[in-house]
Amino acid sequence: MKVAYYKGDKKFEIGEGAEKAPEAGEVKVKIAYCGICGTDQHIFHGKMDQRVSIPQSIGHECSGTVVEIGEGVDNVSIGDNVVVRPLDWCGECPTCKAGHTHICTKLKFMGIDTEGALQETWTVKARTLHKCPADMPLKLGALIEPLAVACHDVRRGRLQAGESAVVLGGGPIGLLVAMVAKAAGAKVLISEINEFRLSLAKEMGFEAFNPLEGDLVEYVNSQTEGTGADIVFEVTASTPGAKVMTELVRPRGRIVLVGIYTEPQQIALFKFFWRELEMIGARVYEKEDFDKAVELAAGGTMPLESIISGVYDLDDIQAGFESFEGNAAAMKVLIKCD
Amino acid sequence: MKVAYYKGDKKFEIGEGAEKAPEAGEVKVKIAYCGICGTDQHIFHGKMDQRVSIPQSIGHECSGTVVEIGEGVDNVSIGDNVVVRPLDWCGECPTCKAGHTHICTKLKFMGIDTEGALQETWTVKARTLHKCPADMPLKLGALIEPLAVACHDVRRGRLQAGESAVVLGGGPIGLLVAMVAKAAGAKVLISEINEFRLSLAKEMGFEAFNPLEGDLVEYVNSQTEGTGADIVFEVTASTPGAKVMTELVRPRGRIVLVGIYTEPQQIALFKFFWRELEMIGARVYEKEDFDKAVELAAGGTMPLESIISGVYDLDDIQAGFESFEGNAAAMKVLIKCD
Repeated sequence: MKVAYYKGDKKFEIGEGAEKAPEAGEVKVKIAYCGICGTDQHIFHGKMDQRVSIPQSIGHECSGTVVEIGEGVDNVSIGDNVVVRPLDWCGECPTCKAGHTHICTKLKFMGIDTEGALQETWTVKARTLHKCPADMPLKLGALIEPLAVACHDVRRGRLQAGESAVVLGGGPIGLLVAMVAKAAGAKVLISEINEFRLSLAKEMGFEAFNPLEGDLVEYVNSQTEGTGADIVFEVTASTPGAKVMTELVRPRGRIVLVGIYTEPQQIALFKFFWRELEMIGARVYEKEDFDKAVELAAGGTMPLESIISGVYDLDDIQAGFESFEGNAAAMKVLIKCD
Repeated sequence: MKVAYYKGDKKFEIGEGAEKAPEAGEVKVKIAYCGICGTDQHIFHGKMDQRVSIPQSIGHECSGTVVEIGEGVDNVSIGDNVVVRPLDWCGECPTCKAGHTHICTKLKFMGIDTEGALQETWTVKARTLHKCPADMPLKLGALIEPLAVACHDVRRGRLQAGESAVVLGGGPIGLLVAMVAKAAGAKVLISEINEFRLSLAKEMGFEAFNPLEGDLVEYVNSQTEGTGADIVFEVTASTPGAKVMTELVRPRGRIVLVGIYTEPQQIALFKFFWRELEMIGARVYEKEDFDKAVELAAGGTMPLESIISGVYDLDDIQAGFESFEGNAAAMKVLIKCD
């Protein structure tokens, strides 16, 4: 079968690979679509070469169809459409034992630490699979993984219907968080500085604000009786985001930290004391977040497809990755693997 | 009656003041003891002259006895021993309406923004009073306010019996947090650099660690299967405290921010993402925290009196405040007002 191998230094190469027969507890999935994530772009740029084993297949935002099942598998059947929750946890560490397998201290992220979905078939543990309704397009299935991230973020923030939410950052994850928050009944404002993303957010029916062109804190206060938003989702991982997040929330408000900050940031701790704020870290997803994401996508009421900015065949994966370079309009690019 | 007036520039002066007859909903309390808080020391040093109205009586950690009640007061009777929850909230702002009157956006802190307890009688709103058992010493009553801070901190942190807690800072509030956490069933470690406070913590039965003499993170990991503490109370308001707090907690652990940081601090936001940490701001107390503090103090099982390092008569208030200057062994100083 065809496999897209990451070769290092911004290069993919299509090569041959052996299909892997599923062992006990495993399932072979024929991959339909696989989305390109920000992490995949980091890999492409050589920033994670210490974690991947070059040459390696990557990719973890996939949909597909079950083509073969190993012994003892009873959660899926041949022919089922599925998505993969790409986490491989140890089950033995104190964090796993406490039930937080998604942040297992020895977690292997499939498609980074082990081979990924950018190949014609992918053999994975059955416990990673979630069934999708047969009538849900497989293209949407490739958005379930990032949508599950958004479901996790909203759940971690304990968002209630009727609350006001500010989403800092209108990239793919920011827009998905906004969609999930809106579906949960929140009044959502998206803050973004990229004009394409601002327009897209507005087209999708969101209120969007450019903090370079106006005072975001003043605006949010004007919309909330001078009190601040109930919840802020920080999805920019930027220094201005870290600064403004503490200024936007009401007393007892919550900040959900979604962006991956590689450097420490100056944080106004006084605000946490004075307003009794909470800051809640959120990483990947749990089983129930995938279930919720499948339910929301299958419901068909969210403008999910709006964030797909391109679809490339597996043979053209190099062009798919290069389509992000210097392109402010690139959002979610899918690779068609079948 | 005698009133201790703060005159600015590290000076108190004992003067005459008129006793105030209680209006409807008010109560006149004969003050027994009033503790000196860190905030009072800031006032003494002139750092809060923009908030106090010189000359002004200050002080907010008091106990006393009801001597006169105004119309409509039904929560206390003449002769009751009481403590004052020194918060005057507006009741009208969105934060009050949401039930968080203790962090009212227009909160007046009694004894700072308005007159205080360092006088022979103090006339206050009945809603600020909590009754104490007649057999609880009034000296202990003066510790109820800081003890309620500790009860609030522990409650905000959702501490569960059996959890491991690290308290950063072994001053009066740190020791009270440690006592309340221990009473709630936690295994407590106190981190402190002042040798007197370290000894006192040990005398009180706590495990105490000097982070200048060993690696605190390594030590906590060695005690927690390499995972980290369940909860950290940051009570130092120091830069080293802000740095180490994120390194001490387990995945999904909580940091309760008690210390009042006047400057933004470099915070390792990556840790919040990676370990799904939570940081929870905690300020003053709510009604139930005072109830809990009275219950704990009345129970008589806590070594509360150990933190009292001196008692001065109201006439000697200047000496009481000066007793903190350059004195590493000063903990909680009480002023006897009757």
